[in-house]
Amino acid sequence: MRKILVIGSGKSASSLLKYLLDKSTSENLFVTVGDVNLNAAKKLVGNHKNAEVILLDIFDETSRTNAIKNADIVVSMLPARFHIEVAKDCVLYGKHMVTASYVSPEMQALNDEAKAKGLVLMNEIGVDPGIDHMSAMQVLDNIRNNGGKIILFESFTGGLVAPESDNNLWNYKFTWNPRNVVLAGQGGAAKFLQEGTYKYIPYHRLFRRTEFLDVDGFGRFEVYANRDSLKYQSVYGLDHVKTLYRGTMRRVGFSRAWNIFVILGMTDDSYTIDDSENMSYRDFINAFLTYSPFDSVELKLRHALKIDQDDIVWDKLVELDIFNSEKKVGLKKATPAQILQKILMDSWTLDPDDKDMIVMYHKFGYEKDGKKHQIDSNMVVLGEDQTYTAMAKTVGLPVAMATLAILNKKITTPGVQIPISKEVYEPILEELKTFGVYFHEREVPYLGYNPLNN
Amino acid sequence: MRKILVIGSGKSASSLLKYLLDKSTSENLFVTVGDVNLNAAKKLVGNHKNAEVILLDIFDETSRTNAIKNADIVVSMLPARFHIEVAKDCVLYGKHMVTASYVSPEMQALNDEAKAKGLVLMNEIGVDPGIDHMSAMQVLDNIRNNGGKIILFESFTGGLVAPESDNNLWNYKFTWNPRNVVLAGQGGAAKFLQEGTYKYIPYHRLFRRTEFLDVDGFGRFEVYANRDSLKYQSVYGLDHVKTLYRGTMRRVGFSRAWNIFVILGMTDDSYTIDDSENMSYRDFINAFLTYSPFDSVELKLRHALKIDQDDIVWDKLVELDIFNSEKKVGLKKATPAQILQKILMDSWTLDPDDKDMIVMYHKFGYEKDGKKHQIDSNMVVLGEDQTYTAMAKTVGLPVAMATLAILNKKITTPGVQIPISKEVYEPILEELKTFGVYFHEREVPYLGYNPLNN
Repeated sequence: MRKILVIGSGKSASSLLKYLLDKSTSENLFVTVGDVNLNAAKKLVGNHKNAEVILLDIFDETSRTNAIKNADIVVSMLPARFHIEVAKDCVLYGKHMVTASYVSPEMQALNDEAKAKGLVLMNEIGVDPGIDHMSAMQVLDNIRNNGGKIILFESFTGGLVAPESDNNLWNYKFTWNPRNVVLAGQGGAAKFLQEGTYKYIPYHRLFRRTEFLDVDGFGRFEVYANRDSLKYQSVYGLDHVKTLYRGTMRRVGFSRAWNIFVILGMTDDSYTIDDSENMSYRDFINAFLTYSPFDSVELKLRHALKIDQDDIVWDKLVELDIFNSEKKVGLKKATPAQILQKILMDSWTLDPDDKDMIVMYHKFGYEKDGKKHQIDSNMVVLGEDQTYTAMAKTVGLPVAMATLAILNKKITTPGVQIPISKEVYEPILEELKTFGVYFHEREVPYLGYNPLNN
Repeated sequence: MRKILVIGSGKSASSLLKYLLDKSTSENLFVTVGDVNLNAAKKLVGNHKNAEVILLDIFDETSRTNAIKNADIVVSMLPARFHIEVAKDCVLYGKHMVTASYVSPEMQALNDEAKAKGLVLMNEIGVDPGIDHMSAMQVLDNIRNNGGKIILFESFTGGLVAPESDNNLWNYKFTWNPRNVVLAGQGGAAKFLQEGTYKYIPYHRLFRRTEFLDVDGFGRFEVYANRDSLKYQSVYGLDHVKTLYRGTMRRVGFSRAWNIFVILGMTDDSYTIDDSENMSYRDFINAFLTYSPFDSVELKLRHALKIDQDDIVWDKLVELDIFNSEKKVGLKKATPAQILQKILMDSWTLDPDDKDMIVMYHKFGYEKDGKKHQIDSNMVVLGEDQTYTAMAKTVGLPVAMATLAILNKKITTPGVQIPISKEVYEPILEELKTFGVYFHEREVPYLGYNPLNN
């Protein structure tokens, strides 16, 4: 039997393991799941005859190297910063490896050695990064193979709550790491390319520079810019493109309300608040407002942000209970971002029956035969429950498929890879369709950012 | 003769050198001015018989140590980051030292050795820091010695253009390092204490949270918070104070207009703009605005910041010529902050006849005999010309006076010092009066931030 070691059995491992175990008999697979916490892993694999669960602490070198030596291929579902320990052993002991995370500089440094040993180190093959790469490259390659010249590429992804579970004013719940949501957009100005000019948006303007997208059957979404719209410009072969814009999708109205937290300074993670532990939610808000011996926190906030009495953003704030003077923060030496996260988790944590949703939207503008064209392509995946979430499916299935494809020598190009070649994306996108993960493509009039183009 | 080595002959050395040379005969002083650029130094000392100018590159160890060894006391007027090389030698060769800069951790580390050798390393004895320390401590000590309990301390300083030279809409010109003005307030949220609660202001709100101050004969000013209001809380003995607030003074309206640059992202110094060299001023502004094939930069800016057609901030922007499509930035790989500085220097550079002004304003609130009191204290110093500027006087004179006082064993407490003890501040504040540098003190009703206190 071919031996697959899966390290980490967190949220996105469910669909991955189900896929591999469902294929284990026909494909002759034995799956070992290693984790420091056995419970989650045991729950996912049950008593499957082609699987075992082992205690694996990747910082314990002996158990780590033993497990890796014993495998034919290693899948790391660990948090991204831990992949490198595994990757080094994989290269040392001659094992292929698959991750859903961004290629770190340390990972990239293993490229030459992996190539020399004929090993595939496949990364960024989850949903974002992952399905975004594959679905984008498929359309881009098609357009170029048919003689089109790409002039615009925009790509947006959102991890959201499914419509049937969408029952708060923000149309948002935490379906993934809450901390990343609170810190989203920080760390420098967002930069992108619009009709041939570079545009820059500072963090405190990011959530006021949104655009709208409509998805058939799912209504309207808004997007705010990612910091790194230009990251894959060369990798995707888009060096001469006029518009290049990547962003994050939210339901309409989220960003305008979120901006209140940004402007007040409540998303700052760079310093700690004095006596945060004993502060009430109301005290926390008040720390960012002027002192007054009599004016209410409510009126000071309305005044500071010029929020009209009948503005819906106000109801969004009230829904979060941020003006509560009884609820204590209860976190020692916490940053504003940590406190805000705690407040949001009171309201935005998924209920046991809630389902999540992944939405992705690409726009491809191109010139062909002297005319401008545009293809819009979007994907919506709904979670089944809180085990087989949309996030777990869209992250785990491509990882699982790539793992099997490498074992079956369908993916053979050695070195540190991301899924942008036809060899990788074509069979995986095709197979993803059978799991309900597919894109709707349609031709639309080319608009770009210039209505006069028509 | 007692030998004084002054290293650096930049903008603030004029009044310093004039003071020392005027006293050189009566006090038996010989002043050596060392700089990498001899011209400025020669201009300042002329042919004075008690002075010489030497070529001194502080990174040339031989010339540096020779000059220091030969002196009785060393004054470093170098940029702050260069003091430490000089300070180490001073400690090694047993010389006192004076600077107008903040005590760096490296400087502080010399404290024990300096103490052991009986050396005074006096720092922060310019204007801000310097005169602010001395003038604040004098009043604070007086109040406490008379049985008062300090409950409020606020302190504000501004380097501005003198009223007679104040002829632009911003009521501002660069009288000191323009780069510091462009970057002011960056690097983290401003934190201060107001009526017993900590308040935090993020950078992008800093210039919208201003307060007003009136100075008799000079009209109204506004202040925005410094990042470090609490920095001297313990040093000043203010651990139990209810309000502690330090800030920077500008003429009313400056901050509201400056905020436009902050909000657009034009003060960011953390990344470089693509092709900044060939950009026009207009292109630069446009990089922070949405793309449009026909809308003007002007209207996009008005819309983005909701600037009414008759708002005076608009005239301030126009005055800076930022919409000019002919003027080129001409700076390679420049950050937004560097480009903005260049644009501002076109408009805010002092004319040859322009004079500067230093304004300082303290508020002291205290309780005594069960009642609340307040003392307001302010200082205005006007420059004489562009050599003997208000900045040069207020920075250079206290440095010079401290230097002579150390030589004359009037200041003797060894170690790394700042001017907060009576031994230091009393004679210097007294002597500064004879140079027109003095404070107006007046009792006012205690207000704090609570009108109900009355």
